[in-house]
Amino acid sequence: MSPQPTSVADEAADPTTEKAVTQDPQLREGAFGNATGLSCRECGAVQPLGPSYACPECFGPLEVAYSFPALTRDEIEAGPNNIWRYKALLPVPADIESSPNTEPGFTRLLRAENLGRELGIDTLWVKDDSTNPTNSFKDRVVACALSAARELGASVFACPSTGNLANAVAAAGARAGMRTVVLIPSNLEHPKQVNSAVFTDSLIAVDGNYDDVNKLAQEIAAEEEGWAFVNVNVRPFYAEGSKTLGYEIAEQLGWRLPDQIVIPVASGSQLTKVDKAFRELIELGLVEDKPYTVFGAQAEGCSPVSTAYKAGVDAIRPVKPDTIAKSLAIGNPADGIYVLDVAKRTGGAVEDVTDDEVRAAIVKLARTEGIFTETAGGTTMAVLEKLVAAGLLDPTKETVAINTGHGLKTLDAVSDQVGPRATIKASYDAFAEAGLV
Amino acid sequence: MSPQPTSVADEAADPTTEKAVTQDPQLREGAFGNATGLSCRECGAVQPLGPSYACPECFGPLEVAYSFPALTRDEIEAGPNNIWRYKALLPVPADIESSPNTEPGFTRLLRAENLGRELGIDTLWVKDDSTNPTNSFKDRVVACALSAARELGASVFACPSTGNLANAVAAAGARAGMRTVVLIPSNLEHPKQVNSAVFTDSLIAVDGNYDDVNKLAQEIAAEEEGWAFVNVNVRPFYAEGSKTLGYEIAEQLGWRLPDQIVIPVASGSQLTKVDKAFRELIELGLVEDKPYTVFGAQAEGCSPVSTAYKAGVDAIRPVKPDTIAKSLAIGNPADGIYVLDVAKRTGGAVEDVTDDEVRAAIVKLARTEGIFTETAGGTTMAVLEKLVAAGLLDPTKETVAINTGHGLKTLDAVSDQVGPRATIKASYDAFAEAGLV
Repeated sequence: MSPQPTSVADEAADPTTEKAVTQDPQLREGAFGNATGLSCRECGAVQPLGPSYACPECFGPLEVAYSFPALTRDEIEAGPNNIWRYKALLPVPADIESSPNTEPGFTRLLRAENLGRELGIDTLWVKDDSTNPTNSFKDRVVACALSAARELGASVFACPSTGNLANAVAAAGARAGMRTVVLIPSNLEHPKQVNSAVFTDSLIAVDGNYDDVNKLAQEIAAEEEGWAFVNVNVRPFYAEGSKTLGYEIAEQLGWRLPDQIVIPVASGSQLTKVDKAFRELIELGLVEDKPYTVFGAQAEGCSPVSTAYKAGVDAIRPVKPDTIAKSLAIGNPADGIYVLDVAKRTGGAVEDVTDDEVRAAIVKLARTEGIFTETAGGTTMAVLEKLVAAGLLDPTKETVAINTGHGLKTLDAVSDQVGPRATIKASYDAFAEAGLV
Repeated sequence: MSPQPTSVADEAADPTTEKAVTQDPQLREGAFGNATGLSCRECGAVQPLGPSYACPECFGPLEVAYSFPALTRDEIEAGPNNIWRYKALLPVPADIESSPNTEPGFTRLLRAENLGRELGIDTLWVKDDSTNPTNSFKDRVVACALSAARELGASVFACPSTGNLANAVAAAGARAGMRTVVLIPSNLEHPKQVNSAVFTDSLIAVDGNYDDVNKLAQEIAAEEEGWAFVNVNVRPFYAEGSKTLGYEIAEQLGWRLPDQIVIPVASGSQLTKVDKAFRELIELGLVEDKPYTVFGAQAEGCSPVSTAYKAGVDAIRPVKPDTIAKSLAIGNPADGIYVLDVAKRTGGAVEDVTDDEVRAAIVKLARTEGIFTETAGGTTMAVLEKLVAAGLLDPTKETVAINTGHGLKTLDAVSDQVGPRATIKASYDAFAEAGLV
């Protein structure tokens, strides 16, 4: 399997434009914790830790490699109530808590009995990342990217984004006291601009669509020293943050892996990192070695991975996204082929749903479990339902579905679906007459 | 000091309309944990635990009384990462975790070095309740009200509200699988309606202003059996939830009380309950007995408590609210007089700020600490700044300020204040020419 040309949206990575954050960083001892190097996912060649993201041998994507020490559950549980309880398993220094960051993670894992009953699943959990500092899982990855930016001596913390990533980078940069630059398409709706602009005076509107903005980010990363674009030149460190979703789910289940898990697929990074986390926990002896099945969720209007899965092919054919699930709208997902690998290896599948199914699932999750998810979470929940109906997901096995973001950010998706049941005069008689008592 | 007639907004309680949730509830053993009764804050008369909220002797407000067992820090720390770690100190049963609820609390306590530097405060912390399940501290009080509603055998879980409380009640009711009715003014903006309507098919729009809606809620509570209005007939249980803010701050500081704390004042309940929590921790030997100072924060457009404080009088003169801080806009706060008591007893003060100061403080908090607060939090941060400037708050002492809600819910407050720094063409040259590198 050869690496695909990759691109677009929050998860950009173009191996042809590799550029250093700093040319010759003076790394301090333990700057990246127990990480030992950057290994190529294709050819296995290992690079030293630094601001690289593509293999100089084969252009394959680089991934952080580690030499983990012995680690106990007690040591982890004695850590803080955020992702740094897993710092020994992340490319961050041992004193990471002392550097200002947003302290994301350790979000709720909710037993979803009501939704499980509606879908016919015996034991269902929702991992709810909408309660992160800026209300999406992006706070996890950005916290790891921020640490890398600091350790590499970057002077600017940056990203191209239209949504969740912009919020997370702007907030983390503010708290870190770093110069922060967030690039957005100039036609982004004003409320979405406000969500990021409140955190930074360096929100830059770029004439063009997201692909234009992303291309500009890659140009800047290539031209300028000291700019850490979280999803470009510090991407290997950034991506590791998604492992914490997997660690938390296992710990919150009582140090046990679920039988099945449903994860949304944008670039595909999150799904592959949760799988990596589960395998690491097994290798470290922190959970029992047992089979688990990983399912990927896409929106029909941007489903290159599920299309490939269903066609039984290894190559991802890029698409032009057209879906309300904007935070999943990556037409040429960098980790799509690895998602296929994980789904096949674990006996899972990749499925997609229509925008109407996404809208319905948002309301269903809210009304059964009191969780207001964004369109990405609606996609995941709708796929969960479809997988059960198709007999691909075993409803008798313990299942986790991940909610990656907050419905307040995609209010439009359901604003035509829900509203008052009745409008009445302000009197008890009117209330009673309306049949509401 | 005699009780004031009380009214309005999220914190309604009219002692003249007391009504049982159920007439003769068959309470199970330990339904309210270590709570022993409901004691009148004015005359001290004690009522049995039940759906009462006003003293039959003197119409004074009732408050939950307890007989606490010996409790250790270790026992608390071994509990879940939500408010139920303090269940022994709340009017809830020992098996509270087994009943579906939103699992709120144990939110971030962030060391705010950047904001502290700007304000000249040596050691400043922000307790960030915007990351609660529905993004405000209301999830805490609603979780306690839900438990009371369940234990009292209520068939309907309800509230009148225009904002945070509506979200919290609708979400908690959905998750609990209880019939949930949320009453709102019919002229509430559509996006705010959606925030609650997504969780319930029983959002009821009422023609009239908030006072009309609140009055209707009290009528229903008086007429119907089995309706638990969280801020009316189960209010004593509901209000106890705010104590968890105080417990968490002390635990997260390493089992230590702060020297100073700034808390927003709507009904005033939260401030008095945080004070109660601190005193309980001292009495239980869980923290060292030491002086602490409590400051209250109001918006100038609704500042009946700070007006009374500054005038040096004991009586609160009701006002008609006119401020962007809607979630603090209670013109006749039920616990206002008790806020004055706490401020005086602890050497604190109650201060107010203009809407423009609120807007500026929202942006300042976001840009220094990466926290996007709503107008209530902006009020608190602006008052913090004003207290330092006035020499009322000692900048050399450890200080905590509470952020009670999320800026995504009051986006309009800052949408004219922030935006892109520049709009450029999508090229590196344009970027460089704009002076952005």
